[in-house]
Amino acid sequence: MVEFVYKCSTCGKRYQRGAVRYLCPSCVRNYRPGIPLVGVLTAEFDYTAIRRQFKKVKPDWNLFSAVESKFHPPYAMKATPFFRSEALGAEFGFSNVWIKNDGLNPSGSLKDRASFLIVAEANRLGENTVVAASTGNAASALAAVCAAADKRALIFVPESAPKGKLVQMLLYGARVVLVKGSYDDAFRLSLEYTAVKGGLNRNTAYHPLTIEGKKTVGLEIWQQNGWRVPDAIIVPVGDGVILSGVAKAFHDLKAAGLISKLPRLVCAQAENSSAIHHYITTGKYRNARHPATIADSISVSTPSNAHLARKAVLESNGFSVTVTDEEILAAQQTLARRTGVFAEPAAAATVAALKKIQARKLLGPQKQIVLLITGHGLKDVDAAMTNIQMPAAIEPTLASFEKSHNCSTSKGARL
Amino acid sequence: MVEFVYKCSTCGKRYQRGAVRYLCPSCVRNYRPGIPLVGVLTAEFDYTAIRRQFKKVKPDWNLFSAVESKFHPPYAMKATPFFRSEALGAEFGFSNVWIKNDGLNPSGSLKDRASFLIVAEANRLGENTVVAASTGNAASALAAVCAAADKRALIFVPESAPKGKLVQMLLYGARVVLVKGSYDDAFRLSLEYTAVKGGLNRNTAYHPLTIEGKKTVGLEIWQQNGWRVPDAIIVPVGDGVILSGVAKAFHDLKAAGLISKLPRLVCAQAENSSAIHHYITTGKYRNARHPATIADSISVSTPSNAHLARKAVLESNGFSVTVTDEEILAAQQTLARRTGVFAEPAAAATVAALKKIQARKLLGPQKQIVLLITGHGLKDVDAAMTNIQMPAAIEPTLASFEKSHNCSTSKGARL
Repeated sequence: MVEFVYKCSTCGKRYQRGAVRYLCPSCVRNYRPGIPLVGVLTAEFDYTAIRRQFKKVKPDWNLFSAVESKFHPPYAMKATPFFRSEALGAEFGFSNVWIKNDGLNPSGSLKDRASFLIVAEANRLGENTVVAASTGNAASALAAVCAAADKRALIFVPESAPKGKLVQMLLYGARVVLVKGSYDDAFRLSLEYTAVKGGLNRNTAYHPLTIEGKKTVGLEIWQQNGWRVPDAIIVPVGDGVILSGVAKAFHDLKAAGLISKLPRLVCAQAENSSAIHHYITTGKYRNARHPATIADSISVSTPSNAHLARKAVLESNGFSVTVTDEEILAAQQTLARRTGVFAEPAAAATVAALKKIQARKLLGPQKQIVLLITGHGLKDVDAAMTNIQMPAAIEPTLASFEKSHNCSTSKGARL
Repeated sequence: MVEFVYKCSTCGKRYQRGAVRYLCPSCVRNYRPGIPLVGVLTAEFDYTAIRRQFKKVKPDWNLFSAVESKFHPPYAMKATPFFRSEALGAEFGFSNVWIKNDGLNPSGSLKDRASFLIVAEANRLGENTVVAASTGNAASALAAVCAAADKRALIFVPESAPKGKLVQMLLYGARVVLVKGSYDDAFRLSLEYTAVKGGLNRNTAYHPLTIEGKKTVGLEIWQQNGWRVPDAIIVPVGDGVILSGVAKAFHDLKAAGLISKLPRLVCAQAENSSAIHHYITTGKYRNARHPATIADSISVSTPSNAHLARKAVLESNGFSVTVTDEEILAAQQTLARRTGVFAEPAAAATVAALKKIQARKLLGPQKQIVLLITGHGLKDVDAAMTNIQMPAAIEPTLASFEKSHNCSTSKGARL
């Protein structure tokens, strides 16, 4: 690890690591619900030290970490698969499409990366309880890492969260509070909790190390891509923290002089949950009124990290697209059938976005495009079922099979 | 790759690779349902060539592969996590317990390993359709790999298979045939199908390369364990092919002179589905009459690979234990809460077995014991729910939270 300070992304003020915990104290005296966070802190490292010490032979990723490795929890994560899919690219007229399958993190989503670092921070601070609000994935991840680290997880979840995600966090032993209301209500309640009762709040963007945790996916892409920067990365966007994490990775690499250009960041949002998309394309912020979408992981009315996410897209010369639920479900099937990757709807939004990018000629056909698959399809089997018909059962004889053969009930069957 | 021949595990006869496809033609003229397979073929490599060429620096695992790498499908798999869990070990009085988390293969189970190699073989043979019977995991894996390789998957599944697994294979675009009956019925029907209609049959043990595919998990354990052989590996056992795969890995390593001892293989079966356990402990084979268990992945009446599995356990100086469904569900929670690993019930049987091993003092407390986690818990959320109570939803206020705080409904909550 190298030294770092926190810098406020709103006013630019710098703080020693030990002087602040969440948002910039100058910008935010009290959290005000219903608007995106201001005063989000970002970690500013001693990039000269990183440049001096980082070697591609035996890369020491701890140089980029905001928490000393001695505090890291015993939660076994490995680099997730990164691979080119000619078949998926060909489907949309692109020749160089790659997949980063982060659904293969232990708890089934990219959120393990943030939870890992926050629990490390809780270890450093001696905090025994970690609190979060989540639509599901961040909560499952936090519950899993807390289990491995023998910490308490207290999680506020909107009651609409998919059953699979709830079962998972309960099984890990988390205390789960189902909240009548939206993700935004759960978010607000969790902040009230830590303000009054204590514990470390892991809320996304609110705690600056969530962005730091998520940036490891960007560092990994760079390494797995043979130390090259892809032309574009398509990121499913809800509150905008994963996008900021990816941006932070390449920002840090550039600041350390290890790369010279940034990947174009493409924000992919669900049509009904597109506050950040609207902000990027119009320059004006407004909440998403009715953020209901099948892609529950990116359903949010007030995206906490709207300001930083917009900035990251614009600074990278990126852009934003929205996709409908119908397009997302079709994309989920296409992804599965061309690559063997079963992604949750939010993650499949990247594939739907790729189709839109082709139609609008937003990226050249030879560009290297990375789709960030943020969660596993098994997280939400009910969503996947929407587009699938169960075949009827047959008697266990070849004759029965042949009788049923001509009236296949499986949509899209290829035999 | 090095040269290999097939050797019959029943009569010992050897065949050139191109001369046979499934079982030993001398031992089996027609498949006879209701008894374990005889004439299962195993691949015998040129171990001298492996010994000469294999280097631990930059290990070339293709030396151990039974299909040339040019035929391997574009299905991105990476080594799954292997780690020590002091907390889980301490729970049962062991100091050196390790987890191999193979639920983190792309389709969520170890079966990806076998499907990968079989689809490679289908590529080599120019077969366009791959056929299988499965309780779910092998089918999902086959569907996933076939999707990536642009092959047809035709899958016979007992109608009791968990919904999550069915949705998954349908989403990948497989033709799924739900069979009224048990796994054994589906198995028989799939053999009839390929005998009459053609295609490559991927059935476990029936096609010799399923064992070869699964052996990669054993090779990986050896490498990740710093090229050391663990004292014991606990394997969940249904038809016995995963167990044979693990055994084959260490057999090959020993034959190549790369290791000098074998790990003790521990067979863990569900009490109601314990044909192999009975065979190992009594020396007499009989079918499991009513193999129903919550651990659907290891539910089988006639385990196809009973003979080889028993041999592997005995040759390694291993042993066998059975566990009840209740013990499995409790173990699933213990595993999740001590390590952050969410395993499907079959995989959690290894943890239940560990408890039994402690009670009966079957392994010393300092022995290095590896638990093979064969499938992800998200594969079967309903099973995990059996032991979990959903909390009631509250209004989004701190007052509501405090009111509900004293009557927590989450069994085992730690806050």
